[in-house]
Amino acid sequence: MTGHQHTIHAAHHHFGWDNSIDPVMEVEPGSTVEFEIIDASGGQLNRNSTAADVAAIDFARVNPVTGPIFIKGARPGDVLEVEILDFGRAEWGWTAIIPGFGLLADEFPEPVLKIWDLSEGKAEFAPGIEIPIKPFPGTIGVALPEPGLHTIVPPRQNGGNMDIRHLTRGARLFLPVWVEGALFSVGDTHAAQGDGEVCGTAIEAAMTATLRFQLHRNQSIAEPRYILPGPPTPEADAKGYFVTTGFASDLREAARKAIRYQIEHLQQTAGLSREDAYMLASVAVDLRISEVVNAPNWLVSAFLPQAIFR
Amino acid sequence: MTGHQHTIHAAHHHFGWDNSIDPVMEVEPGSTVEFEIIDASGGQLNRNSTAADVAAIDFARVNPVTGPIFIKGARPGDVLEVEILDFGRAEWGWTAIIPGFGLLADEFPEPVLKIWDLSEGKAEFAPGIEIPIKPFPGTIGVALPEPGLHTIVPPRQNGGNMDIRHLTRGARLFLPVWVEGALFSVGDTHAAQGDGEVCGTAIEAAMTATLRFQLHRNQSIAEPRYILPGPPTPEADAKGYFVTTGFASDLREAARKAIRYQIEHLQQTAGLSREDAYMLASVAVDLRISEVVNAPNWLVSAFLPQAIFR
Repeated sequence: MTGHQHTIHAAHHHFGWDNSIDPVMEVEPGSTVEFEIIDASGGQLNRNSTAADVAAIDFARVNPVTGPIFIKGARPGDVLEVEILDFGRAEWGWTAIIPGFGLLADEFPEPVLKIWDLSEGKAEFAPGIEIPIKPFPGTIGVALPEPGLHTIVPPRQNGGNMDIRHLTRGARLFLPVWVEGALFSVGDTHAAQGDGEVCGTAIEAAMTATLRFQLHRNQSIAEPRYILPGPPTPEADAKGYFVTTGFASDLREAARKAIRYQIEHLQQTAGLSREDAYMLASVAVDLRISEVVNAPNWLVSAFLPQAIFR
Repeated sequence: MTGHQHTIHAAHHHFGWDNSIDPVMEVEPGSTVEFEIIDASGGQLNRNSTAADVAAIDFARVNPVTGPIFIKGARPGDVLEVEILDFGRAEWGWTAIIPGFGLLADEFPEPVLKIWDLSEGKAEFAPGIEIPIKPFPGTIGVALPEPGLHTIVPPRQNGGNMDIRHLTRGARLFLPVWVEGALFSVGDTHAAQGDGEVCGTAIEAAMTATLRFQLHRNQSIAEPRYILPGPPTPEADAKGYFVTTGFASDLREAARKAIRYQIEHLQQTAGLSREDAYMLASVAVDLRISEVVNAPNWLVSAFLPQAIFR
């Protein structure tokens, strides 16, 4: 465990982005801070929850973020660097199909909930299918310049609910600063996710995250960017990939087709239910844009890592 | 060089997909065939061409494909497997910004042409910037079921101009068969390309491709799929990535923003012109869909491999 100088406890959380929320703490640039992070259901789900509990989720209380913290000296026009140092171990996690949410929401109208036991440091989806644990915060950002409360759901120029699975140990995230002190918050920790998060949820899991902050002046950026120190997915690459494609004049429709074909493949080859295959795709399959120039059809590839199968 | 049993010479090429074109050759499943492939300009560009020649390209003669070949026994409803065995060396290549074409066509109205010397087995973009050579056919497919001539530009359920950069040595492509004998053709070889092919062209280069064909019955698929035997991008991964992001309610607009930020980054850090940065992004930057579920904003990440910089 990396050492840290400050801890922001889980009680200090908020819902949505609002630059009038008082900071929990002020820290100097260079500080390392541990955050206790509540799961994306805001504690509404537990290890014994069922699909009925998913249907009953109060969306005003989802996706709490821990913070905000005030970075001393941060001003609009600066860049806040967040180095992702470490995560504590999660004991359990959940993945759900939430009605009305997800890439194939129209095809999966019923709530489904899967509970994961993560206590042994692994994530077994089913016998013979194991997802490598690779934690990251789904939501990470700073306050917006516009006053008032802004829903947490979409990512914006402040970062937020970006669900970038590569923001794991060793990554460095660069966020534009929009208000004095930046007002940084983090939440929505995931034990694993594929690029796309297609069913709308990952392996959602409460855990701690340890982050180090640096401030860069005169490097104004319009939207977040990040640096990865090495190969993005070494844990998934070794055995190669089974890849489906979808073409369409809309990239999201192309992605829908590619994921639909992966679901069919997983049903046929791994004996999964359609719902399980959708959730497995969400935690393990990566969406890449193969071409976005050959009008009128763009092509998306959906990468299923073979390393998850024993 | 992998041995092959047949050679389809470059003179046997056609423009567009038309299932009435007579096959050049009939081969048995299991056959290995070498294809001589003309560059995507159809020979309209050469090592001494200029931007003016790009502006004068006759689009009726672009993207020739070599073939078609008739796979004995292939019937509609079968799956044709194409194993990518090997490529011959290209002597030179080109990358162009073609007016009206590309992800940022509205921002790059003027034709630009870059000629690459590939004769030493490497692709130097500028001093200190070298792109790993990783050949693949941008266009690979079978005849469509619908009669008549269909433009080569968009990919469809027959494969075609998919520009999937991962279809390199060792990959296996699975194509649905739509007509008797499949009528397979291949063209548009690229020495390298990023996922997305954002400026509309890759390192376009004539070369030979050696492919092996297998036939699978009773495995009907709706669209192409492929299998990669190992890590997708080992040549690019080692030094990590500098990644820009773009969010938007449309994935293509999100990709446009992410690429625009990469262009700005390349201008600032590598001293490139805006046009050179756009072409470098096209041959080296990979587009990934980070999330496509957090309505109303989806997020695209553009991955620039640091390994291309000495």
